Amino acid sequence: MTYSTAILGASGYTGAELIRIIAGHDHFSITALGAHSKAGQSLAQVFPHLRHLDLPDLVAMDAIDWSGIDLCFCALPHKTSQEVISALPRHLKIVDLSADFRLEDPEEYEKWYGNPHSAKELQPEAVYGLTEFYRDQIKAARFVAGTGCNAATGQYVLRPLIAAGVIDLDDIILDLKAAVSGAGRALKQNLLHAELSEGYHAYALGGTHRHLGEFDQEFSKVAGRPVQIQFVPHLVPANRGILATTYVKGEAQAVWDTLNAAYADEPFVTVLPIGEAPSTRDIRGSNFCHIGVAADRISGRTTVIAALDNLTKGSSGQAVQNANLMFGIPETHGLMMPPLFP
Amino acid sequence: MTYSTAILGASGYTGAELIRIIAGHDHFSITALGAHSKAGQSLAQVFPHLRHLDLPDLVAMDAIDWSGIDLCFCALPHKTSQEVISALPRHLKIVDLSADFRLEDPEEYEKWYGNPHSAKELQPEAVYGLTEFYRDQIKAARFVAGTGCNAATGQYVLRPLIAAGVIDLDDIILDLKAAVSGAGRALKQNLLHAELSEGYHAYALGGTHRHLGEFDQEFSKVAGRPVQIQFVPHLVPANRGILATTYVKGEAQAVWDTLNAAYADEPFVTVLPIGEAPSTRDIRGSNFCHIGVAADRISGRTTVIAALDNLTKGSSGQAVQNANLMFGIPETHGLMMPPLFP
Amino acid sequence: MTYSTAILGASGYTGAELIRIIAGHDHFSITALGAHSKAGQSLAQVFPHLRHLDLPDLVAMDAIDWSGIDLCFCALPHKTSQEVISALPRHLKIVDLSADFRLEDPEEYEKWYGNPHSAKELQPEAVYGLTEFYRDQIKAARFVAGTGCNAATGQYVLRPLIAAGVIDLDDIILDLKAAVSGAGRALKQNLLHAELSEGYHAYALGGTHRHLGEFDQEFSKVAGRPVQIQFVPHLVPANRGILATTYVKGEAQAVWDTLNAAYADEPFVTVLPIGEAPSTRDIRGSNFCHIGVAADRISGRTTVIAALDNLTKGSSGQAVQNANLMFGIPETHGLMMPPLFP
Amino acid sequence: MTYSTAILGASGYTGAELIRIIAGHDHFSITALGAHSKAGQSLAQVFPHLRHLDLPDLVAMDAIDWSGIDLCFCALPHKTSQEVISALPRHLKIVDLSADFRLEDPEEYEKWYGNPHSAKELQPEAVYGLTEFYRDQIKAARFVAGTGCNAATGQYVLRPLIAAGVIDLDDIILDLKAAVSGAGRALKQNLLHAELSEGYHAYALGGTHRHLGEFDQEFSKVAGRPVQIQFVPHLVPANRGILATTYVKGEAQAVWDTLNAAYADEPFVTVLPIGEAPSTRDIRGSNFCHIGVAADRISGRTTVIAALDNLTKGSSGQAVQNANLMFGIPETHGLMMPPLFP
Repeated sequence: MTYSTAILGASGYTGAELIRIIAGHDHFSITALGAHSKAGQSLAQVFPHLRHLDLPDLVAMDAIDWSGIDLCFCALPHKTSQEVISALPRHLKIVDLSADFRLEDPEEYEKWYGNPHSAKELQPEAVYGLTEFYRDQIKAARFVAGTGCNAATGQYVLRPLIAAGVIDLDDIILDLKAAVSGAGRALKQNLLHAELSEGYHAYALGGTHRHLGEFDQEFSKVAGRPVQIQFVPHLVPANRGILATTYVKGEAQAVWDTLNAAYADEPFVTVLPIGEAPSTRDIRGSNFCHIGVAADRISGRTTVIAALDNLTKGSSGQAVQNANLMFGIPETHGLMMPPLFP
Repeated sequence: MTYSTAILGASGYTGAELIRIIAGHDHFSITALGAHSKAGQSLAQVFPHLRHLDLPDLVAMDAIDWSGIDLCFCALPHKTSQEVISALPRHLKIVDLSADFRLEDPEEYEKWYGNPHSAKELQPEAVYGLTEFYRDQIKAARFVAGTGCNAATGQYVLRPLIAAGVIDLDDIILDLKAAVSGAGRALKQNLLHAELSEGYHAYALGGTHRHLGEFDQEFSKVAGRPVQIQFVPHLVPANRGILATTYVKGEAQAVWDTLNAAYADEPFVTVLPIGEAPSTRDIRGSNFCHIGVAADRISGRTTVIAALDNLTKGSSGQAVQNANLMFGIPETHGLMMPPLFP
Repeated sequence: MTYSTAILGASGYTGAELIRIIAGHDHFSITALGAHSKAGQSLAQVFPHLRHLDLPDLVAMDAIDWSGIDLCFCALPHKTSQEVISALPRHLKIVDLSADFRLEDPEEYEKWYGNPHSAKELQPEAVYGLTEFYRDQIKAARFVAGTGCNAATGQYVLRPLIAAGVIDLDDIILDLKAAVSGAGRALKQNLLHAELSEGYHAYALGGTHRHLGEFDQEFSKVAGRPVQIQFVPHLVPANRGILATTYVKGEAQAVWDTLNAAYADEPFVTVLPIGEAPSTRDIRGSNFCHIGVAADRISGRTTVIAALDNLTKGSSGQAVQNANLMFGIPETHGLMMPPLFP
Repeated sequence: MTYSTAILGASGYTGAELIRIIAGHDHFSITALGAHSKAGQSLAQVFPHLRHLDLPDLVAMDAIDWSGIDLCFCALPHKTSQEVISALPRHLKIVDLSADFRLEDPEEYEKWYGNPHSAKELQPEAVYGLTEFYRDQIKAARFVAGTGCNAATGQYVLRPLIAAGVIDLDDIILDLKAAVSGAGRALKQNLLHAELSEGYHAYALGGTHRHLGEFDQEFSKVAGRPVQIQFVPHLVPANRGILATTYVKGEAQAVWDTLNAAYADEPFVTVLPIGEAPSTRDIRGSNFCHIGVAADRISGRTTVIAALDNLTKGSSGQAVQNANLMFGIPETHGLMMPPLFP
């Protein structure tokens, strides 16, 4: 059985990553590629690396005939997503990769993103797309809101630990190192090679990064009471990868045991032997997440580090993983490609 | 039907690339991973990015039981390859990725590599592994000697042009830009990040690069008379990729027509519209080769540029492509993964 | 004696490089920093790496009081330069870093740059700023037009060889590899880290790069008859550096002797021992140019490679070198800082 | 007045950086360059980027005539330093860049470095070289032991805060991101471009990094009671730079006030306006250290981030700064070169 899909926002990095993954997928085909400023161009013009694929030209979104399409991947910027998804026909299943439907409370959305939520009526339908923790709901869902890439990484570390009560909930620090493709293909000065390649730095200081909205929502749900973490993201000169170094108060062995048990049957999340450090080179281009745990010399302090590829496990790979579940396809189908190293 | 393979030299970059490709191949399985200094280690220790694969530990080469193995990929250094392959049982099909059996004349081998050929009796059996030009011989071969990565890139540009007589055979210049993984995983000072990342440079000046042996042999065969090209390789701060800028004397349209006709039915070699320049970002991690042709403002001068991934189309992808042919498997099987970008 | 200078276009990379160099110069001070979109900002805002310097805020160009200023460095985009320089008071000495006054013939300017020359009356006054070859004119000049960075690199290789008649003038190929800062600080997709860092490629194929206007003008003057070279530039993933690999027909020893004699007394241009290859890492951040010469295995073919830093010797360092001459300051003053490695 | 210096370990990165700085210094000259495996080579062979300098060839250490030498910079590996420095004549002033004399207690040295201290008699004479905090002792010293580059960065953040009592001494976390030149020029697999450039990761997990010995010693001295911090270093794909993100419990304004007061008169340490994040691109190749402070959204939590160049302010620049003090030369002499950007 093959399902017909459309990708909206096909000219961005997450769009390209969706195409890359679906190109090797037996049960999804691509019927339409929607774009805004690049409508009318061929895929070879927008993404020469995908020129070997026999796919349609990019089109304006309102030119798509949705009648034969089963699934829409929406890889548009936030705010635009709300507008576009509101107008999609109801027969479609939808996987949204934007931030527009991740937060259950529209006021939280407005607080973090600065604009009022413009599709409140759809929000209750959206299932949060962190597959390993929302698997049953996703299977039954028509509409899944994919997580933020940084938010996913931090949750792979912290959800099991918060649920198990093996760490102090009031003293969690997440120091995150993000590669540049997480910022998208937009033209910004700090993304230029000359600025970044010997210039790494923190950003969104002071607890202002928008993915904190997701952390707050999810961790508080897991804990059954408010939990706030301290989160400082950094931009490093690499193309793909997120490395989340998490400082928690708890015993390393209990932390490792908890994580190991939580992910024992998970195909994509691997807990390394205690004391080993993950590296972004070991997950690049794959749907895997590696987690390392180490006791500090200071008793009762533990460092947990997770690495994943922001474009794959952090967004487009996660999206396909969720789509597999939504259509009754084996969850790992099309997602077992090994990382690319070197 | 699945064929059992062994990979010798599994701890190098071409070894890792073979494993990556075969992991997604339906008709080859990996029975043994041979290594020298890393024998006894698990694959997860040597290549953490491949830890999700259920593969055997690395073993010393003489510990491999060859009886149930159908195919040996040999990714060893030159000189060692000759010794090892000489001792392999005759029932095995062999794809060698080293330089040891590329040159038909053992004296040429000694001239370029500095050591006497130690397996002359095997040399006549070796089929040169540039798939698109030796397809029939490879199908019938027991033993294929893969090409050099730089040598393959230059030949994709020049073989059709030499054969068609559309360029001056006595005035060919090849300026090549190679990424660092082509130099392997050996510990050399010029491969350190601190030395290379802001330091690009030419090497093997003066026509001393060993792949010239292959160029001389093949171009002279194609031309039916001696042909020597001028070849200057450069090392650039990137991980994967070869970009071969070729300066020829001939009309651009004739050059483009010739190349386009030569590769019209080839699944992996694409000739871009005239005037377009290929980029290494568009073939990284894939088995594709992109070729661009442009007329210069000086009449009768043409620039032809080819881009491929040294580890894939330049070595391990080519090796699997050849192995497919040797076992009657569709040639593109397992090799259509799109490039990884960004 | 200290001369007062103004820098127009201070917010670009060549502007920053001028400030860096002048910060260590005993005879130039900076009185005004002109900028367009960043007027009103402090230098620390625009260039945090220069925050330790006690310099004025950036101002709009028409807010500069030129009465006490001796020298204007003009680091503006081409076309804008012609307009701005036309309006500057005549008491100023001027070093222009743009392309606007490099070509003596306004029709050539229009041909290469696409817009009509808007300051033809000033053009005859402009002295071409390739210091080593125009030293006497520069000493006497009021107005110097700095060379293109690629154009400078190619000329360091080829001018002495053309003048000496040791190479074939009708068969010169220049394959150039440029780092990204040469493209400036403009927001262009191909300058993004994610696009460039594993994606190197040729550009301006077919003899369309604008610096060919300079090559044509200068080489024809040196030869006393028209000379056209074949020139293909490439963009590589590094921040600073130009590597110009030049393929000439001539004897390597005669080539080396000619270059060595030409630069024997030059403080900034070094000819390496024959057979050695220069690297961009050895000139980064400095005003030096390294040149290597090697005989090819094909008799009568020689490769000459030059490396320099596009922002220093290729533009801002050259500008200060010329300014030193214009004011009777020792030519090397403020320019002997060693390269930064690693 | 010019003092004659020798550099031992001249073929490493800190050796090259010393030469770069001293090349622009009016009061130090280089009389001898000591090396081990590279003795007999010219500086141009070992460091082509320094070929323009008129300096002696590298020599074996026992070939140096110390009689006319005033100052020895010792840039040797630890353990070797103890042996070599013990044997130096007593008339020399010495600045050691190794770890061999940083720890006052030889048992601590053995604990962190694994070998017994072999020059215990010299240890009491060694002054710890963190200039801003040991200025008076350094002025009077014959023998200064330079700090570790990571240790210096962390101390610039934490010493004033610990001294002022504005943070919780029992809950300090330092997440450090180090560029690759800090690991030296040794041939190690994880320093290869192909391994590092898309592979960043933590190392020395669990509080095992040797610079913790310095932190423990110094912070406990400042506090007047034992202080231990939690420290996780990471390796990132850049050549120069250390970024130290420090998580403390204290009020941001008090933290900023304390740091600002501490460094108000320091020429090389700059505290940025509150809320600004420093970047390694803004200090590369310079002796400056930038410090940023930000309040977190969680009350009472503050993030302090310091950036410096490991080879300059972190080692060789610090060494020259200390040498200036030891010889009565103005402290900033030769060290005010601006950063190199881009």
